[in-house]
Amino acid sequence: MSDPEIAIVGAGLIGRAWAYVFARGGLTVRAWDPDTATLDRLPAEMAAMVAEAGGDPAIARRIRPVASLEATLEGAALVQENGPERLEVKRELFARLDAAAPPDTILASSSSALPASAFSADLPGARRCLVAHPVNPPHLIPVVELCPSPATAPEMMDRAEAIYARVGQVPVRLSREIEGFVLNRLQAALLAEALRLVDEGVCTVQGLDDTVKHGLGRRWAFMGPLETISLNAPQGVPDYMRRYGPTLGRLADDAARGAAFSAAVADRIAAAFPHSATPDGVRARSAWRDSELAALDSHLKTRAEKDR
Amino acid sequence: MSDPEIAIVGAGLIGRAWAYVFARGGLTVRAWDPDTATLDRLPAEMAAMVAEAGGDPAIARRIRPVASLEATLEGAALVQENGPERLEVKRELFARLDAAAPPDTILASSSSALPASAFSADLPGARRCLVAHPVNPPHLIPVVELCPSPATAPEMMDRAEAIYARVGQVPVRLSREIEGFVLNRLQAALLAEALRLVDEGVCTVQGLDDTVKHGLGRRWAFMGPLETISLNAPQGVPDYMRRYGPTLGRLADDAARGAAFSAAVADRIAAAFPHSATPDGVRARSAWRDSELAALDSHLKTRAEKDR
Repeated sequence: MSDPEIAIVGAGLIGRAWAYVFARGGLTVRAWDPDTATLDRLPAEMAAMVAEAGGDPAIARRIRPVASLEATLEGAALVQENGPERLEVKRELFARLDAAAPPDTILASSSSALPASAFSADLPGARRCLVAHPVNPPHLIPVVELCPSPATAPEMMDRAEAIYARVGQVPVRLSREIEGFVLNRLQAALLAEALRLVDEGVCTVQGLDDTVKHGLGRRWAFMGPLETISLNAPQGVPDYMRRYGPTLGRLADDAARGAAFSAAVADRIAAAFPHSATPDGVRARSAWRDSELAALDSHLKTRAEKDR
Repeated sequence: MSDPEIAIVGAGLIGRAWAYVFARGGLTVRAWDPDTATLDRLPAEMAAMVAEAGGDPAIARRIRPVASLEATLEGAALVQENGPERLEVKRELFARLDAAAPPDTILASSSSALPASAFSADLPGARRCLVAHPVNPPHLIPVVELCPSPATAPEMMDRAEAIYARVGQVPVRLSREIEGFVLNRLQAALLAEALRLVDEGVCTVQGLDDTVKHGLGRRWAFMGPLETISLNAPQGVPDYMRRYGPTLGRLADDAARGAAFSAAVADRIAAAFPHSATPDGVRARSAWRDSELAALDSHLKTRAEKDR
């Protein structure tokens, strides 16, 4: 079988990061954007991105901007859609993609909040539509959540999973549609409690982040929370549950709810991070974050190699 | 001022790790345990621990087992108590410590679940009692939660904070007593939702851990959850809250509660981790975890140096 070809639809920040991921994985990428200026800038921006990451310049040459959506889709095994996160826009875009793409092409949306059924349920090709939710930025954080709609064919999920894994991402397959998928559900649960503790003055913003980055996050960065608890009692998980389940259950019952996401606590957190006061500050600190993510990814890959 | 001296009370797994932390930080450590066999084994165990970590053999020589509790406490600036996590035991032990220790000695308990008021409220020296909750193992995970009782003197908190910081730990100071402190409250909130998602079959155990270790945990390992959100909208945290607060709030409202900590889900998770079926398996995998924690700590320290 020949290598799958990839179509990127929407060449903004996330679209370009996806283009990089697939091209870095050796695949040929065609990219389209409704904005021709965005398309015109693409080759230079991809070359700069590859250079900054210290990658082979050939990676950028595998990414080609294409002026027509139809020509972009032709022969593509998978379309990665990165349009604006607005339901009407996604609906219209998916109708267009479904009408123009070859019948077996996978149509995957980067949507972080809209379930696939919301924009594909009525399409003739609903069976090949799904969400492939990345974490920003996908070329530095490998997980991608694959969430089907009730109409998505398991065979399409299988093929999508294989393509993402092939380019070095870590696909996590959901069995059914659920709001927030997995990652944002976990994030929301922890964040709510974090916001509440800071809002009530139990600890400072810095103290909260320290508790995670110098504590909880250390184990979660290479094991995840479930393997973590598998090691926290001599007889494994059932032993852990007997010892700590009642206490943890009480804490979960008492955990903060949605009301914790308030404007007041947002101001309090913003005050602790002067960088976040301006878009330039956010951009500069995000560049620092990305260099740390790249270094961490490289560290974790080296350790995983060693284990093999 | 001369260097503070440290007394370790209870020389089991956590007590030995604390002894190592303080001695590695250059301080003189005396250790006591009610079990004389445990005390007799201590020098050899500390030497082995230091050797395994590739540390200076002088570290182990700064740790001295002492047969009498009173002699252990003499001249100590801080007592780190590591007795069994049972209220009656802690109560009796703290009464003994308070009666025997010099009046300005800090009495800090490693308790992960008992608040300081529960075992010190009635003591004459309640003002110098607090919880200093480590994460296992404290010589590889630097956070230590400092939680006062209503009677604890701020000055005692200040001095404890300075001592932990001096030996390279990251003290997080709580303003008041709260069940689960900060770390386990955050852990419980995330774990409940994780257990529910696995229990309902939304994703596999492996998929859940992948979502964290190849996703969420990547940023939390060096930034924490609050700095993470400070970078996730162009205008900072208030912007983030306006964009994503309503969705995250809905997810938090819908997040799993204490009932998620069930025996059934424990069995399901245990089945995914064959190592956790026996104490030997847990021990072997814990040794792997500790080597990964040490490597990650060293990676993060190198990056933090670079930033300075």
